[in-house]
Amino acid sequence: MSTQQPDPQAGAAVKAADRAHVFHSWSAQGLVDPLAVAGAEGSYFWDYDGNRYLDFSSQLVNTNIGHQHPKVVAAVQEQAARLCTIAPGFAVDVRSEAARLIAERTPGDLDKVFFTNGGAEAVENAVRMARLHTGRTKVLSAYRSYHGATAAAINLTGDPRRWPSDTASAGVVHFWGPYLYRSHFHATTEEQECERALAHLEEVVAFEGPQTVAAIILETIVGTAGILVPPAGYLAGVREICDRYGIVFVLDEVMAGFGRTGEWFAADHWRVTPDLLTFAKGVNSGYVPLGGVAISAEIAATFDRRPYPGGLTYSGHPLACASAVATINAMAEEGIVENAARIGESVLGPGLRELAERHPSVGEVRGLGVFWALELVKDRVTREPLVPYNASGEAAAPMGAFAAACKKAGLWPFVNMNRTHVVPPCTVTEAEAKEGLAALDEALTVADRYTV
Amino acid sequence: MSTQQPDPQAGAAVKAADRAHVFHSWSAQGLVDPLAVAGAEGSYFWDYDGNRYLDFSSQLVNTNIGHQHPKVVAAVQEQAARLCTIAPGFAVDVRSEAARLIAERTPGDLDKVFFTNGGAEAVENAVRMARLHTGRTKVLSAYRSYHGATAAAINLTGDPRRWPSDTASAGVVHFWGPYLYRSHFHATTEEQECERALAHLEEVVAFEGPQTVAAIILETIVGTAGILVPPAGYLAGVREICDRYGIVFVLDEVMAGFGRTGEWFAADHWRVTPDLLTFAKGVNSGYVPLGGVAISAEIAATFDRRPYPGGLTYSGHPLACASAVATINAMAEEGIVENAARIGESVLGPGLRELAERHPSVGEVRGLGVFWALELVKDRVTREPLVPYNASGEAAAPMGAFAAACKKAGLWPFVNMNRTHVVPPCTVTEAEAKEGLAALDEALTVADRYTV
Ligand SMILES: Cc1ncc(COP(=O)(O)O)c(C=O)c1O
Ligand SMILES: Cc1ncc(COP(=O)(O)O)c(C=O)c1O
Repeated sequence: MSTQQPDPQAGAAVKAADRAHVFHSWSAQGLVDPLAVAGAEGSYFWDYDGNRYLDFSSQLVNTNIGHQHPKVVAAVQEQAARLCTIAPGFAVDVRSEAARLIAERTPGDLDKVFFTNGGAEAVENAVRMARLHTGRTKVLSAYRSYHGATAAAINLTGDPRRWPSDTASAGVVHFWGPYLYRSHFHATTEEQECERALAHLEEVVAFEGPQTVAAIILETIVGTAGILVPPAGYLAGVREICDRYGIVFVLDEVMAGFGRTGEWFAADHWRVTPDLLTFAKGVNSGYVPLGGVAISAEIAATFDRRPYPGGLTYSGHPLACASAVATINAMAEEGIVENAARIGESVLGPGLRELAERHPSVGEVRGLGVFWALELVKDRVTREPLVPYNASGEAAAPMGAFAAACKKAGLWPFVNMNRTHVVPPCTVTEAEAKEGLAALDEALTVADRYTV
Repeated sequence: MSTQQPDPQAGAAVKAADRAHVFHSWSAQGLVDPLAVAGAEGSYFWDYDGNRYLDFSSQLVNTNIGHQHPKVVAAVQEQAARLCTIAPGFAVDVRSEAARLIAERTPGDLDKVFFTNGGAEAVENAVRMARLHTGRTKVLSAYRSYHGATAAAINLTGDPRRWPSDTASAGVVHFWGPYLYRSHFHATTEEQECERALAHLEEVVAFEGPQTVAAIILETIVGTAGILVPPAGYLAGVREICDRYGIVFVLDEVMAGFGRTGEWFAADHWRVTPDLLTFAKGVNSGYVPLGGVAISAEIAATFDRRPYPGGLTYSGHPLACASAVATINAMAEEGIVENAARIGESVLGPGLRELAERHPSVGEVRGLGVFWALELVKDRVTREPLVPYNASGEAAAPMGAFAAACKKAGLWPFVNMNRTHVVPPCTVTEAEAKEGLAALDEALTVADRYTV
């Protein structure tokens, strides 16, 4: 692990320059106080003051292969020397190979790949394909979801980040997905939750008018909104509803895809094949911006003679594609997907459940692979969240105190609402996972203080 | 110039793999027949069959610094070794420095930079900022324009690529910009065109209700839709209208920015300062996907205490920012912007006008820097376009024949509707520019056959 000598002055200069000119996402600019990062390797990154953090957020849940994987770095360098950029209209070796490697792994006949720069653009294009394929307008998405921040993607999103950009006219209808811990359907078992969530969805489709619904889009496992693992049978049930009414089934695997759940795609856990699958993040761990849509044979055929009316300057960018080729190959060679599964089953799952037993602030533990959430509550009986939905400022203080305690213990957490997600790289070792559990143990002691 | 040995078999394999798995933008998938590209350097790229092309399209008008500039390649390699990716919430040296270098060059007080992956996302965020800053919904954009292909950007776009994704409800109203050669206003002089275009815009604002208009967005010089250079006074006039009614003025410099017009920004030609300026392409020549919005002090202040509700996983991506730093520095050190201005004034401008004199198919020559269009016509008197608006198939054959003749002459053109754009890298040499003019001379002979 090569960390630099501390250099607080350099760090202060980086931060001052940031505050002078960088406009930050999702933030009040006058209040952002960014940590200046000096370097990163594997499961760690470090600042200029001598602090090293175990990255249990994988940045924004994208560095599935860890920081600075040598094979991916080398591939980026090699491709940079060969050909950094070329327009989407040409054929290029690395783009063809990236598409082949992805198509080889996506479920069923999703064998054509349209590349974008990230997740939001992938969702935008999936929606366009679904609308043109069906000739219908409406898209159904879940209240608990995040799909990106361009106009169509933010309207699909269910979390409060949608509100300031909402266009009620965008043709989106939100429904409730399964979530037994806070069941919208007053269910008491997984089977019941599944059955009722499907009945709800089918009734929404019926009342919206099936012939008006172009697509149903779902995160295979809901990510940012809570790591909600669907009950067995739910996704198959949605597939059936889509088939019954000629609706395009889109699975958003931007966060869940490429190893995070211990399979290449989360859909593999239930052997479900959507019509369109969106990806980004893990496809190349974000070393170069890349996303895309994997497309079924039937939908691809719609655009065989009829031009597909969408594009972007950097579709299938060679540098991005080269990093995807190297990432996918390294993940396969080094058994990184299997590692994620094993760490989940033998270390994180048992370890988090053990923490839950000892910490009254933990209401629920859920997840698989390296994709876990701890839901923090004031009261285990009433399940009242540790902070209210969409809390900010003082109201969010308990989660702020928890996050600060994590950082003090050397762990960088992914905190959202009343949850902390446990989302290290898929390459995380057993020792690192245990180090992270120990840090969470300390930080949960702080959260416990806010329980009744 | 290092070109490889021809290897047609390798080229055929790349193309076959492309056809198996790559879904192409803006295309009927069954009809695409992509050229397999083997490599590129400076103003040229080459295929696997021993053909080399002078790149007079700069790919999609993005490689302003040419292909494989050694300083930019080295910077990408170096940054890859240091830190490929880090989340937007942190401060990082290369991101701070890229923002500083951009802010230093953007007009007026546009001193904060929000980074995106490309042009469409830049436009999406500019629109969101304008709407939240003003509390208004409508955005006015030009019929002759291209702003990208995500939902908000494609609705703003004026060209026919908008039609399949159009949502009449998106709050966009289109107006007519100045274009003397095909004046919407029956004007006969530049002064008259300017005056009438401004009166038209002000009347549209009045009838839409000024208090409902959040923003007016314009490409400083309209790019894809025809390299339409605004008459002196037009942009200042739009600035005045915006000031009069509290409307946010957005200049889209995605294509015109970073040297293409012989200034850092096209707005510099008229010393106009917008409230928001979108960029992408030339900022780093597309070596790594990058775009962004430069933001005025007043609009930035709106988001000082109130969170800005937009973001993306790769905002301010370190690898992309490092390539922007290297690109901007190399452009400054090597006088690349000045080169673009000089080539435009002393070689391309005179050369294209000379071609127009000899070729009856050339209706108009317009542009500046390395940003030119030849508008091809059947008849110089009636100005009937060589092919109809939005022609495809047989109807577009004359432009197809022209493009094929360019390629045969070793020149890769940028063809759109009845125009060919002359948009080489800003690094193009005098000899290369002349080589390109000679190829155009040959190809125009083919176009001439379709004139009356
Ligand atoms: C499921 C899902 N879809 C889409 C997105 C948007 O991706 P991007 O930020 O690359 O636009 C995200 C980002 O977190 C995501 O988690
Ligand atoms: C003026 C302008 N704006 C926006 C865009 C969209 O940029 P991107 O393709 O990177 O999304 C383009 C692309 O050609 C453009 O020319």
